[in-house]
Amino acid sequence: MKIALAQINPIIGDFEGNLERIQSACTRAGEEGADLVALPELAVSGYPPRDLLDCPEFVLENQRTLDRLVKSVSGPAVLCGTLLRVQGHGGKDLANGAVLFRNGSILAETRKILLPTYDVFDELRYFRPGDTPLCFDLDGIRLGITICEDIWNFAGFYDEEGYSQNPVEKLASKKIDVLINISASPYRVGHPEKRRLLGRKIATTFGIPFVLVNQIGGNDDLLFDGYSFALSASGEIAARAMGFREDLVVFDLENCGKKFNDVRENEEEEVLEALSMGVKDYLHKCGFKKAVIGLSGGIDSSLVAVIAARALGPENVTGISMPSPYTAQESIDHARRLAENLGIAFHIVPISSLFETYKSSLASLFEGFKEDVTEENIQARIRGNILMAVSNKMGWMVLSTGNKSEVSVGYCTLYGDMAGGLAVISDVPKTRVYALARWINREREIIPHPVLVRAPTAELRPNQTDQDSLPPYDVLDSILEGYVENRETVEQIAARGFPLDLVADIVRKIDRNEYKRSQAPPGLKISRKAFGSGRRKPIVHRFISR
Amino acid sequence: MKIALAQINPIIGDFEGNLERIQSACTRAGEEGADLVALPELAVSGYPPRDLLDCPEFVLENQRTLDRLVKSVSGPAVLCGTLLRVQGHGGKDLANGAVLFRNGSILAETRKILLPTYDVFDELRYFRPGDTPLCFDLDGIRLGITICEDIWNFAGFYDEEGYSQNPVEKLASKKIDVLINISASPYRVGHPEKRRLLGRKIATTFGIPFVLVNQIGGNDDLLFDGYSFALSASGEIAARAMGFREDLVVFDLENCGKKFNDVRENEEEEVLEALSMGVKDYLHKCGFKKAVIGLSGGIDSSLVAVIAARALGPENVTGISMPSPYTAQESIDHARRLAENLGIAFHIVPISSLFETYKSSLASLFEGFKEDVTEENIQARIRGNILMAVSNKMGWMVLSTGNKSEVSVGYCTLYGDMAGGLAVISDVPKTRVYALARWINREREIIPHPVLVRAPTAELRPNQTDQDSLPPYDVLDSILEGYVENRETVEQIAARGFPLDLVADIVRKIDRNEYKRSQAPPGLKISRKAFGSGRRKPIVHRFISR
Repeated sequence: MKIALAQINPIIGDFEGNLERIQSACTRAGEEGADLVALPELAVSGYPPRDLLDCPEFVLENQRTLDRLVKSVSGPAVLCGTLLRVQGHGGKDLANGAVLFRNGSILAETRKILLPTYDVFDELRYFRPGDTPLCFDLDGIRLGITICEDIWNFAGFYDEEGYSQNPVEKLASKKIDVLINISASPYRVGHPEKRRLLGRKIATTFGIPFVLVNQIGGNDDLLFDGYSFALSASGEIAARAMGFREDLVVFDLENCGKKFNDVRENEEEEVLEALSMGVKDYLHKCGFKKAVIGLSGGIDSSLVAVIAARALGPENVTGISMPSPYTAQESIDHARRLAENLGIAFHIVPISSLFETYKSSLASLFEGFKEDVTEENIQARIRGNILMAVSNKMGWMVLSTGNKSEVSVGYCTLYGDMAGGLAVISDVPKTRVYALARWINREREIIPHPVLVRAPTAELRPNQTDQDSLPPYDVLDSILEGYVENRETVEQIAARGFPLDLVADIVRKIDRNEYKRSQAPPGLKISRKAFGSGRRKPIVHRFISR
Repeated sequence: MKIALAQINPIIGDFEGNLERIQSACTRAGEEGADLVALPELAVSGYPPRDLLDCPEFVLENQRTLDRLVKSVSGPAVLCGTLLRVQGHGGKDLANGAVLFRNGSILAETRKILLPTYDVFDELRYFRPGDTPLCFDLDGIRLGITICEDIWNFAGFYDEEGYSQNPVEKLASKKIDVLINISASPYRVGHPEKRRLLGRKIATTFGIPFVLVNQIGGNDDLLFDGYSFALSASGEIAARAMGFREDLVVFDLENCGKKFNDVRENEEEEVLEALSMGVKDYLHKCGFKKAVIGLSGGIDSSLVAVIAARALGPENVTGISMPSPYTAQESIDHARRLAENLGIAFHIVPISSLFETYKSSLASLFEGFKEDVTEENIQARIRGNILMAVSNKMGWMVLSTGNKSEVSVGYCTLYGDMAGGLAVISDVPKTRVYALARWINREREIIPHPVLVRAPTAELRPNQTDQDSLPPYDVLDSILEGYVENRETVEQIAARGFPLDLVADIVRKIDRNEYKRSQAPPGLKISRKAFGSGRRKPIVHRFISR
């Protein structure tokens, strides 16, 4: 049996388009001699549909599309993720399911059993779980079918508490010939490799070939990396799809001996691919073609410009330098050089006269008060207003440029540098920003070299540097990773060698700035725990972590 | 048996403060002769703690506080909502529970069985459900104990799909003498009455007295109204606490004959109480004392100023008029008159020179382009920047003033009029804004009378009115209610007597403006479905409702 792994990029709710994507994958799979085509989780609607599932018409349209799909494909059997209505006994009556069909007839249906409800996942909000995983004999081959989370209940692999059952064990006990998993498994750094390690564990533990088909594409804050793969019963890679783009590969169950080494990608390249895909999909799926970025001459906006040029084409990206009285000439020069290196458009809009006009407009109200962070924020918000005006006038999307370190501790201005349609690197800590910049420059200068070595500065007052307000970024990022991603306590973090007061101060800053992040644009998730839909802290609370 | 209904206002994670609130309620209950004190759901931590539950220290601190509470109260027995750790078999190991204790000893524990996971509720994200409701004999009285959602599985009362079991029926079959429900049940218009109707249904169906204790206070977007009550076995009100403030009332189980009529509050007054409490709690629990509001001379900002003055005291509210070249003199006059009527501070900061400076700064970039919505948004964002500057300089919170009708269709400017710490009326449709204004003015003019009769206008270009872009507000609000709150399809709404094209256009606008709302400040929920944490639509999707 030949199984095609059809890795598609659906758009949420684009039923007509998704139908065509699935049909064309099925046609290609047939041409390549596949007996079975496997498509990702919820391929008909795209994943995650979130509260569109509350709309009865959405579920109906999914069903109509599925009916058309089943009738339209001839040739190979098809396993496709889809919404399914289930008999209600009170409680949810919708399932995250899959259908197996061939030549117009549905052969079997199944439902996802383990419904992730943590981090960005809300599946118990929408779905009733299945109870028994599907085992189906197709042309003499016994298939075991699972959906995404169903395979993750192995020690060392699950993110949260684990589950009280393991569908893989149940299937393995039924002497299946191959285990297939259809997924919409979001990207985070290292996750493609973790998925393969899990696959190998399953294949070798139970001695069965293993196939995983994953969605690709960006949907709001979530990035799906694809990297679908098939493993032999001894855990060797027998087929493998590309990352971050649509692909189709065929796995021959009878001839899965050919060995590929399990390639570990370069981590920087993987992250850049992920973010580029995220920018491209967010804009294109929204109907935007072009982007505009405020170029400060610093490393964050430089990195965002590189990613945008890669994602959209340099002809679709415009950089704007908005110097104030505190902007060094070299900042403008670096921004211009970056734009030249990338081949993107570049403009300068000075903000000094605007800044002065604000100050005089507010002079009587602020009489007797000293200059403080207010005047810094006014500058940032002037820039936000200018970028948004360009966006409104030209129809370009503003990409905001704050990194995760800044956003964590609130070293950023609401409606200022936080303004934009998409926060490209808001899940990238500053230390990784540098690593990505060095990788980008590995062969030739793209980001002007001085940008990588200059002390980072917001340039919102004379001679300011980030380290006036923040600890060195390697220290800050280590504390952030402990607190935000790994849920360490203040004491646990301090025990790794940081002053207790410093850690407590950083943690307090993180907690207090929830109000800013709650108004941030969506950010592309590349870590275990990003700010955004997967982190739901109250804005108002008095809990002090210790 | 005398049962005290102790309706407290906890702050999320303020374990020390919540402990004192509970202890002082217990002391008062003892003084009033109570044998049992009932406190709300999760009274120890406050509800909802959201992802603070992911923090192991939070759960530990809850346990330590509970231990101190149990040891510290003497006299009456206490029933108190709290987090409980449960034995794990894989899966969540935390419960939304309650303990019954007296004189230092825990008599019983129980767990919430029905865990709401829809709208603003995420309980299956955190909790393992209980399976059997608690029935406990205290001093010869058989108590049936339920937690919030546990009582809601009655046809006509549940919001979503219902559940496959009904803990109330299970308890009733055990011959209980009284059913007690401890809740943190969020406010929405009409919900206090609905809760009493449910209580009456339970009391009369099973012939048992019924007690419901509800949390009060605002926590982020959620408002808890209190209105705790006790009913006799025949469904008559025997005790009743106030709405929107802390209270304690005692219900005498042996003498619950005294009849109160089921008073239907005035709806406008109820909403004003709710919003005032929301503003007060959001600011005070955040550590703010004062607020600043942009006063346009229109009805929305006027209403917000009235609510703020009521919530914080007029001495803590400042209104700022920011006239542009398109602002009518009467708008400034009305804003000033409102401020005088309320006794709040009032300033004028003209924005014409700023607007001109933006236009000249952008002139070369915008050469050849006509004026359009860009210039309107620039004005709104200048005002946002001024208000935020005042906020930064003075430490006052900006209250944003957009109503639900505007926010629905995107008739508002991101980083402009949407800027602020709290969106006070973003769940109040324009027609209700008018109704509230008329109620406020019922005895004397507080909001200047012309504001109520003048055609609404954003004054962002000459002679603009809202109805240039939008249908009449009664039409718009009826469509919004159908689509957002009642999940009607376009055709169902049109069938109520609106042109199909108009309905489709409005629904498309609602869908397309998700990106703006995703960056809005938290808004106070007063309807069945508010924008915010309970409505999780994708930003990027292609589904077209029909």
